[in-house]
Amino acid sequence: MQKAIGIFDSGIGGLTVLKEIVAKLPDENIIYLGDTARVPYGIRSAETVTRYSFENTQFLLAQEIKMLVVACNTASAVSLEAVKKEFPLPIIGVLDPGARAAVRTTRSRTVGVIGTEATIRSGAYEKAIKKLAPDVHVHSLACPLFVPLAEEGWTDNDVAELVARKYLASFQDTGIDTLVLGCTHYPLLKTVINKVIGPGIALIDSATETAKEVADVLEKLKWRGNGIGEGIRKYYVTDTPARFEQIGKRFLGDSMLRAEQVKVGGV
Amino acid sequence: MQKAIGIFDSGIGGLTVLKEIVAKLPDENIIYLGDTARVPYGIRSAETVTRYSFENTQFLLAQEIKMLVVACNTASAVSLEAVKKEFPLPIIGVLDPGARAAVRTTRSRTVGVIGTEATIRSGAYEKAIKKLAPDVHVHSLACPLFVPLAEEGWTDNDVAELVARKYLASFQDTGIDTLVLGCTHYPLLKTVINKVIGPGIALIDSATETAKEVADVLEKLKWRGNGIGEGIRKYYVTDTPARFEQIGKRFLGDSMLRAEQVKVGGV
Repeated sequence: MQKAIGIFDSGIGGLTVLKEIVAKLPDENIIYLGDTARVPYGIRSAETVTRYSFENTQFLLAQEIKMLVVACNTASAVSLEAVKKEFPLPIIGVLDPGARAAVRTTRSRTVGVIGTEATIRSGAYEKAIKKLAPDVHVHSLACPLFVPLAEEGWTDNDVAELVARKYLASFQDTGIDTLVLGCTHYPLLKTVINKVIGPGIALIDSATETAKEVADVLEKLKWRGNGIGEGIRKYYVTDTPARFEQIGKRFLGDSMLRAEQVKVGGV
Repeated sequence: MQKAIGIFDSGIGGLTVLKEIVAKLPDENIIYLGDTARVPYGIRSAETVTRYSFENTQFLLAQEIKMLVVACNTASAVSLEAVKKEFPLPIIGVLDPGARAAVRTTRSRTVGVIGTEATIRSGAYEKAIKKLAPDVHVHSLACPLFVPLAEEGWTDNDVAELVARKYLASFQDTGIDTLVLGCTHYPLLKTVINKVIGPGIALIDSATETAKEVADVLEKLKWRGNGIGEGIRKYYVTDTPARFEQIGKRFLGDSMLRAEQVKVGGV
């Protein structure tokens, strides 16, 4: 079997990234690991998330991968540098592609970022954006209820809208014209976020941006798949698969989604 | 030091139980373990939660405890019998006290139960209630957004009310006159739940009921503290303490809350 693209996420959210990669590179084999026994990462400390990232990477390396995608904003924000230092394969996080797209998009040079508590606390988006364009102002906001809303499937009802209104009111009068959806769950709430924040503000979905970067890197290295047929996709989880399969179907629109439970790290 | 009452919860919610025990038995030493590195239990499988319960119990036994309180509805629902079988000290879960209070309270012989996905899926409340009173009808409902709402501190605003309305509408026309708050986070939403469900329905808070049972058991065994002064309270967590201390202050109204990070099981 041709070596796969390895993807890990704290749970289900990374499937939005997988979906975009599949759309762009349908012939690639993909191995996905959802660390469902230890989800959510967004409320945990940087040390803990970094340890989990190492263990997830070791598991995926044992499955024969050519490239690693850290499809979790929290893990990308707090552990990507450490993971890159330890494991010398091509590694792509979801944070830099989002930051790059934001810098490319903003005209007002003022960007908003929303994400989990851990992602926002880390300041990683702000640092990444400032590194690319020191003149861009960044307004960051943690939106802890967006993940449970997306998992409950309440992505486009009155609760979702009221929650979005409460959080996004913080961006009023900041002058942002671009908002980074800095969590892989948030694209599911795109419609309601768009409605609340208004048509004048561009939404950056890191899933799309990350898929573009995965394709670019594989092209550059001449490591692309053979271009024939559909790649094989395997899903692993660290808790029992039932909940992942059920919610994952909503994410992927794939009613046949099957996952296998594995042991990763101490879990 | 006099042997302590050991309490564990998946995270912060069990502090509502601790608070009631302190109010009732202020002279008792209490050791609390919040498994914050593996929270939330409510979305995990029964096998995983059972393993976590065993590891938490082993940690507390090493701290010299005379009694164990499983202050987590999910752990009580799916693992209490197994924990009792393995560890022969007095053990109290939060589920049976709540079930008993519900049976004692209902006149219409129809009871509602709300809790996490894992608690409701286990059917443990229904079983416990039916065992006490086979004639009582039970209507159960998972309310996954209540925990993140409580942790966000949105316990009495318009979002909390709208979410409560959406969930609790299921109980219309069921004839319930009693509603069990089957998750230790839910007492924080008591005001809004009460407002939405109406004054005709009694709310059962397992925290109060559990504290009563702890006092009863210690009295019966003649294991009560010496009745002099304030007991010592120690808080342990499995992730870094910052978030636990911050949210815990809101739960306990104790601005001095300090917790220590420890290793439990594979975490």
